[in-house]
Amino acid sequence: MTTVSDILAFLQTLAPDYMKEDWDRTGLNCGHRDAPVKKILLALDPFDHVCQEAKAFGADLLITHHALIWDAGFVTDESITGKRTLFLIENGIAHINAHTNLDCAPGGVNDILADTLSLTHVEVIEPKGTDPEGKPYGLLRRGYVKPTSLDEFLNQVKAKLGAPMLRFVRGGKPVHKVAVGGGACASEMQQAINAGCDTFVTSDAKYNQFWDAKDMGLNLIDAGHFYTENPAISQLASTIAQAFPNVTVKISRSHRDCMEFA
Amino acid sequence: MTTVSDILAFLQTLAPDYMKEDWDRTGLNCGHRDAPVKKILLALDPFDHVCQEAKAFGADLLITHHALIWDAGFVTDESITGKRTLFLIENGIAHINAHTNLDCAPGGVNDILADTLSLTHVEVIEPKGTDPEGKPYGLLRRGYVKPTSLDEFLNQVKAKLGAPMLRFVRGGKPVHKVAVGGGACASEMQQAINAGCDTFVTSDAKYNQFWDAKDMGLNLIDAGHFYTENPAISQLASTIAQAFPNVTVKISRSHRDCMEFA
Amino acid sequence: MTTVSDILAFLQTLAPDYMKEDWDRTGLNCGHRDAPVKKILLALDPFDHVCQEAKAFGADLLITHHALIWDAGFVTDESITGKRTLFLIENGIAHINAHTNLDCAPGGVNDILADTLSLTHVEVIEPKGTDPEGKPYGLLRRGYVKPTSLDEFLNQVKAKLGAPMLRFVRGGKPVHKVAVGGGACASEMQQAINAGCDTFVTSDAKYNQFWDAKDMGLNLIDAGHFYTENPAISQLASTIAQAFPNVTVKISRSHRDCMEFA
Amino acid sequence: MTTVSDILAFLQTLAPDYMKEDWDRTGLNCGHRDAPVKKILLALDPFDHVCQEAKAFGADLLITHHALIWDAGFVTDESITGKRTLFLIENGIAHINAHTNLDCAPGGVNDILADTLSLTHVEVIEPKGTDPEGKPYGLLRRGYVKPTSLDEFLNQVKAKLGAPMLRFVRGGKPVHKVAVGGGACASEMQQAINAGCDTFVTSDAKYNQFWDAKDMGLNLIDAGHFYTENPAISQLASTIAQAFPNVTVKISRSHRDCMEFA
Amino acid sequence: MTTVSDILAFLQTLAPDYMKEDWDRTGLNCGHRDAPVKKILLALDPFDHVCQEAKAFGADLLITHHALIWDAGFVTDESITGKRTLFLIENGIAHINAHTNLDCAPGGVNDILADTLSLTHVEVIEPKGTDPEGKPYGLLRRGYVKPTSLDEFLNQVKAKLGAPMLRFVRGGKPVHKVAVGGGACASEMQQAINAGCDTFVTSDAKYNQFWDAKDMGLNLIDAGHFYTENPAISQLASTIAQAFPNVTVKISRSHRDCMEFA
Amino acid sequence: MTTVSDILAFLQTLAPDYMKEDWDRTGLNCGHRDAPVKKILLALDPFDHVCQEAKAFGADLLITHHALIWDAGFVTDESITGKRTLFLIENGIAHINAHTNLDCAPGGVNDILADTLSLTHVEVIEPKGTDPEGKPYGLLRRGYVKPTSLDEFLNQVKAKLGAPMLRFVRGGKPVHKVAVGGGACASEMQQAINAGCDTFVTSDAKYNQFWDAKDMGLNLIDAGHFYTENPAISQLASTIAQAFPNVTVKISRSHRDCMEFA
Repeated sequence: MTTVSDILAFLQTLAPDYMKEDWDRTGLNCGHRDAPVKKILLALDPFDHVCQEAKAFGADLLITHHALIWDAGFVTDESITGKRTLFLIENGIAHINAHTNLDCAPGGVNDILADTLSLTHVEVIEPKGTDPEGKPYGLLRRGYVKPTSLDEFLNQVKAKLGAPMLRFVRGGKPVHKVAVGGGACASEMQQAINAGCDTFVTSDAKYNQFWDAKDMGLNLIDAGHFYTENPAISQLASTIAQAFPNVTVKISRSHRDCMEFA
Repeated sequence: MTTVSDILAFLQTLAPDYMKEDWDRTGLNCGHRDAPVKKILLALDPFDHVCQEAKAFGADLLITHHALIWDAGFVTDESITGKRTLFLIENGIAHINAHTNLDCAPGGVNDILADTLSLTHVEVIEPKGTDPEGKPYGLLRRGYVKPTSLDEFLNQVKAKLGAPMLRFVRGGKPVHKVAVGGGACASEMQQAINAGCDTFVTSDAKYNQFWDAKDMGLNLIDAGHFYTENPAISQLASTIAQAFPNVTVKISRSHRDCMEFA
Repeated sequence: MTTVSDILAFLQTLAPDYMKEDWDRTGLNCGHRDAPVKKILLALDPFDHVCQEAKAFGADLLITHHALIWDAGFVTDESITGKRTLFLIENGIAHINAHTNLDCAPGGVNDILADTLSLTHVEVIEPKGTDPEGKPYGLLRRGYVKPTSLDEFLNQVKAKLGAPMLRFVRGGKPVHKVAVGGGACASEMQQAINAGCDTFVTSDAKYNQFWDAKDMGLNLIDAGHFYTENPAISQLASTIAQAFPNVTVKISRSHRDCMEFA
Repeated sequence: MTTVSDILAFLQTLAPDYMKEDWDRTGLNCGHRDAPVKKILLALDPFDHVCQEAKAFGADLLITHHALIWDAGFVTDESITGKRTLFLIENGIAHINAHTNLDCAPGGVNDILADTLSLTHVEVIEPKGTDPEGKPYGLLRRGYVKPTSLDEFLNQVKAKLGAPMLRFVRGGKPVHKVAVGGGACASEMQQAINAGCDTFVTSDAKYNQFWDAKDMGLNLIDAGHFYTENPAISQLASTIAQAFPNVTVKISRSHRDCMEFA
Repeated sequence: MTTVSDILAFLQTLAPDYMKEDWDRTGLNCGHRDAPVKKILLALDPFDHVCQEAKAFGADLLITHHALIWDAGFVTDESITGKRTLFLIENGIAHINAHTNLDCAPGGVNDILADTLSLTHVEVIEPKGTDPEGKPYGLLRRGYVKPTSLDEFLNQVKAKLGAPMLRFVRGGKPVHKVAVGGGACASEMQQAINAGCDTFVTSDAKYNQFWDAKDMGLNLIDAGHFYTENPAISQLASTIAQAFPNVTVKISRSHRDCMEFA
Repeated sequence: MTTVSDILAFLQTLAPDYMKEDWDRTGLNCGHRDAPVKKILLALDPFDHVCQEAKAFGADLLITHHALIWDAGFVTDESITGKRTLFLIENGIAHINAHTNLDCAPGGVNDILADTLSLTHVEVIEPKGTDPEGKPYGLLRRGYVKPTSLDEFLNQVKAKLGAPMLRFVRGGKPVHKVAVGGGACASEMQQAINAGCDTFVTSDAKYNQFWDAKDMGLNLIDAGHFYTENPAISQLASTIAQAFPNVTVKISRSHRDCMEFA
């Protein structure tokens, strides 16, 4: 019988705790370590509709990228995150997250993002260390595309990530050397520039970060938090499904970006 | 229909948040604010057997003095407090605690302790403020007993609190002016001495605090955390029962001190 | 002869320092207090092109909402903000900013935003204090529009603010009670909900904040940092021009949002 | 002529400073480094009667486990610890303490406690490091007794430690694998459980720690701070006496536990 | 019989604790509160020779401006301040200090310094509050002298304070409006300038503070820590002698500045 | 063409960043990294007259020991250091400082001071580490002079450093083993004593440090911040001039100590 503990141990081989950022937390968010696991739902986030889908699916485990509870010690419906935690526990669903450990891991979120964008010669930018096999790990990746115009590259990004709309700023250069950082990585823009990149694909960029990028001559593309990180979820689902053939692994169908443009 | 919110609001009138110590936390620990409340279990602590009694009783609300979760953000059975929280939520039981706000409140834990010990002319030692009616609030209480020997007073304390065993040190004086602080208040010993007391009844005193008391000539009596604070629970139960006649209020029967002596 | 000091003193009457957030800084960023001021450029931010426009205009003072240097103590071109500071000083342009003091002030950024959106019965949400005339000040504002559909309101927002594109999430309610907070105020979403609002107009909202809003039933509209705060600049320019008739006051023509959509 | 410095240097070989906990302090508490030492009194603590015994004995050095002054910078009789310091200095008695360095050292407080309880195959639990000879050091020890009932083991503990009374809780298992931590180590209970122990002997346990132990199935025995740590004092006295044949070394006769039971 | 407590209480009327700087400490440094006081030695500091003079005089109390122990918790001869404390206690001499409370008090160190320098119309610069009688208190004082050259004023300062040598910098203005701050107050130089002073008499000024003063056009005179603060000691001695006629009060004869010039 | 960057890189070979104290800052204080450098002015400090000399000389780079801006983030004439920074930038002069990295470096400020005083067998006291060549670095130096009287040594110090006046205290021993620490190092006095020194040459010593030295039997000589550190400037100028033959390197002629004695 597969248990929550087995899944936790397996995730440690994919994205060990020591790869995470210091401020981050990861692991079992709620539930029992020894609970049997027959059905797993995977999604980028444990938002309300994902929790409800987990229940409808009959999942006994939800695995997401982002954590459930950030600073609380109370589990009440007085906060939106407390409410979601209550729902999962009340419905017998354990919850695990793998966040910046999965971002930084070899083969993790950012390698998958680089791969999805068909970058070549992909390397870790400013590695934080190496794993036991000597593979470097760290947050950002740098790779190459055949030199192309920014407008053409924007079309490729939309198509490859399935993003309905991009926000971007023109740095004034064609696209060739590309840095990627799924999620909110715009504050690491200087790393991308130091690594010689002309273009940086990330998300949740702020107003002044667009201007800073422009003033430094960097094409900054905000492709959306969901679209830059979600590709990792399918991959993670396959890997888990292969490792645990007796467990039914499902990728959330309801999970999507709720942000619209007008 | 009485709800969790109604109980929370009523507790604010008995032991408002502003009376609590800065480091402390109080209020709704888990559950839904709008949940209907038909059955309440009251106990000093949310230990495992109390949580189980709450379930057996069919309680939809557990009210205790001590909080459930102290420093965690995870609700898992990897910690003993996480495990208890899981149990309560999984069984649909909300949990409220009132801790140092209830210790300090007029008519709260320490007034009831003074009363249980039949002290007279009871006053707050070093009040922290006054409530809207002008009544002082604060941690310790000072009161009087007719001058008596320490051995005789120890017998009275055991009888009145129902404590099976006391730990104490002889300060060398008969008992007349008595300070009380339910729970672990021995670190406030100097306050009791400054207030002119010859005797201090509290609990969870440490080895060196017994010697410090002896060296300062203070009779220090450790009557047990449970026995010094539990009297407040009955009183709280009555007050709540009176205010909410449609709710069934029960005092935990299983809750007791598990500590034995050999 | 008007000097930088005169302008600083005048700004204190519009947006006193005590109204700012604790973490914020405001006032003279670079330059000489006694420098004569004949030409002032106003813009939301001191980005590169604004600094260059100030030079081309012959400005001796630049006034912006956001500050120039955030955490540095070095003024070198090793950072983008150091480089901008160098440019201003090298070209004899003093720089003043008025940030959260102007956001919170009566008649400041958020009152102007509410006004631009034609809200009625505008009030400060959770005021932080009152000014000497008894007027409340604080970050957010709440006001009313005639009940309307979200789609219709989105059209109005775009038109009134001149925003090319909005990002938003549907909370599931028509628009009537609207909270506004120019700039990155989405983290104050709970205040808007507590104030009974169905809709919140702000900017720089993050991926998860859209979902949190949706899950709490709030229409969240990100109209852009530039478009929500820039209206305050024209107003500030008029007020200063009126108060200092001998000074030429210009609103930046080059300053705009550089973010594009694809 | 033996001096205080010679004793300090010798203690560094038994319990080097680097073995102590970060928050702790150890070494010379009061007195002159070059003072000649002819008579040493050893006791667990520098309480009033111990200080007086040191004077009556004519000691020029007092060595204890616990320190004299904790957070003060004033040496006055306004505090009980200041008063004791004054007394020692006024009577020409130097004072040295060796606290958590001695707890953690190989052959220190906890090895002696394990030995006194006749544990076999004793090992350091979660070692913090190794000394130059490669011996691990750290706080707790784990050892074995022949499987026995808790009641029988309690009798043995009382007899071997000379403790008049034990406080304990039944974890529900017979005794076989035993963790020990002299002094107030109950907060390290989880370490004992992780190390597979069924029983933990320590002291100054608090009310809730008894319940936590019970709920986790651990026999927790509070044998008293004095009784769990005092055995180390005799050993330390012998070691010092052997190393300094010209010095008269005495173990305090007056020092005992002042706590009584009623 | 006068006791240490009586002296402490009297000093509270001259220089209450609430007047001191937050980082400072004051009061009984070592000794017994109830010790009888027949002979008091007063000096600016408790240096070695002062402690020895106190012993030779047969003092049971030493009162100084500066404190004895700053950051230690150990009273050993491993530090120079520990050694002095040991000496006082070993010789039965209590020690009290009144530091920044006496600097700031009306009639305290800085009023006496202003008076010694014959300043007129003396006021507190940037008062920190008022005492119960409404008198302002605070660190620096500002007063006037008849306009005079700096060289002439230097001669007066040397003569009036008995200082063998002054260190100074020429700010380029004659002397008229003078700020004074006994001890190391040069870091408050900006306060003196804001108060319109042309000259600042203080001590322990650092190399760069001389240049900063010069560059800001302030005459900065370092008259020595001893010479600027010592006048207050005679005054304090008289006040105490008057209040306690049965106590013999002596001003240290050995205390002087040990710094020489070559 | 030599640039600011070239000079920065060269200074890293003389006094690498890792040699500096943790609290310190060093490097480019203001200016552009790629600016061409034809004329460098070197001085101990960037005081007003030095900045003016730099302008008069036509320097495009000023190199000093001390930094320009300490805690500010604003570059305005509201502070004396802001004013100096404004002046340099307005006149196109970049500014680099090398502070405690140069103090600690082999061949740096303190080795030069030891050399200027003709000390022999010079060693680093309590080295903080070693450079890649294995040379120790650290703050203080210890060296020897032929045994001589303090008065004779004072004459030598004045002559060798060109100091107009020394402040000193007699420790009561002849001079033989000498510690040196240019600038304000008196707080490291205990290091000098532990290293067996009878004499310590430093600067900016405070009143109580003279007494502490006297009471510990150490000759403490305050030779002035300027005179103890300035010798390093000539040496640095030669080294830079040799390395960059196309650059005109000048040592400030105006820079001197402004402190006078009366």
